[in-house]
Amino acid sequence: MPDTRALVVDTALRLFRERGYEATTMRLVAAEAGLSVGNAYYYFPGKDALVQELYRRIQVEHRAAVADRLPRGGTLEQRLTGTWLAGLAVMAPYRSFGAGFVSRAIRPGEAASPFSDASSEARELAVHLLRDVVEGARPAVPGTVARELPELLWLAWLGVTVFWLNDPTPDAGRTRRLVTGAAPLIGRLVRLSRLPVLRTTVTDVLALVEDVRR
Amino acid sequence: MPDTRALVVDTALRLFRERGYEATTMRLVAAEAGLSVGNAYYYFPGKDALVQELYRRIQVEHRAAVADRLPRGGTLEQRLTGTWLAGLAVMAPYRSFGAGFVSRAIRPGEAASPFSDASSEARELAVHLLRDVVEGARPAVPGTVARELPELLWLAWLGVTVFWLNDPTPDAGRTRRLVTGAAPLIGRLVRLSRLPVLRTTVTDVLALVEDVRR
Repeated sequence: MPDTRALVVDTALRLFRERGYEATTMRLVAAEAGLSVGNAYYYFPGKDALVQELYRRIQVEHRAAVADRLPRGGTLEQRLTGTWLAGLAVMAPYRSFGAGFVSRAIRPGEAASPFSDASSEARELAVHLLRDVVEGARPAVPGTVARELPELLWLAWLGVTVFWLNDPTPDAGRTRRLVTGAAPLIGRLVRLSRLPVLRTTVTDVLALVEDVRR
Repeated sequence: MPDTRALVVDTALRLFRERGYEATTMRLVAAEAGLSVGNAYYYFPGKDALVQELYRRIQVEHRAAVADRLPRGGTLEQRLTGTWLAGLAVMAPYRSFGAGFVSRAIRPGEAASPFSDASSEARELAVHLLRDVVEGARPAVPGTVARELPELLWLAWLGVTVFWLNDPTPDAGRTRRLVTGAAPLIGRLVRLSRLPVLRTTVTDVLALVEDVRR
């Protein structure tokens, strides 16, 4: 029954927050949820699947956090600032979890890697949100740039996330400064990309990204 | 005596390459070097110190690999392409080590992190090499940009390194394409940074970097 599945997820995410990834075993999740270990495994084949559930849930909460704002328009920098600050707020309860977990997620071939096949659903949700940020911006983002920008912004967001996990300031003040400082610069660079003098370079940057991506 | 120290280092680096970080214990290093464990510890307080030795040695080899070329001038993109391709060649024997090790090096607060105090010597050597790349370039790189560029290039190089550790192509062909494609674009962006229309943006990007760095 679906309630049991939700109970397993809620319990696992709480344990991830409270005890970190390593200490959260399927056995502990089952015990804390008042289930047999076999019953917990019936819903999730292991911790990796629970991590994917965490990724997916963060995306769903991130989307919900900006759902009111995105249809209202605004410039690219306004939309990006709002969306990224909302993303930091959504991830905040998992900051200590992430600090320990990033070491696993960065390992090549790991299911928890944001680039893995297993992470494709969460990745697509994340890129799709950024596509909505880009496409609803006024003035409109030029076509060639608009096509590739969501994925570039997603890569930038991964960089912001790693920066945030290493940010020693209370309430991640430095990361918030990075976001509020970088979003207007990205907006300005996108506007400048229309200039003839920059157009070739922009095309070449996009072609290089296209060439080396998986 | 210094020969014993070199023996410990050589043995440890060989074991790092052959068996990876986790399996290389101080006990194993001592045994393979034909020393007592106490003697090995006399030269290095632990594996972290051997990792710093690896970092330092890679920097020294990287410098040696481009020592002939750098005084000969060339454009920024030529110098950067040559230096980065040489860097990939120097690191090549440690690629499988790095793939497992990056998960440790990325953990916040870890001595092996490229941003840690312990890594400051290797970091300074790396930034210094990139400063020589920038300062010897002809046409000369504009002053404001030249000051901050070496550190930005070092951050870019960390990104290239993570990309390289995840590169599934034989002989890291995709990473070589990334380097040979990105260096001319960096050169072109640096030239464009002189244009009045971009000057404010360049200044603002540099100010943001200055603001959020440690």
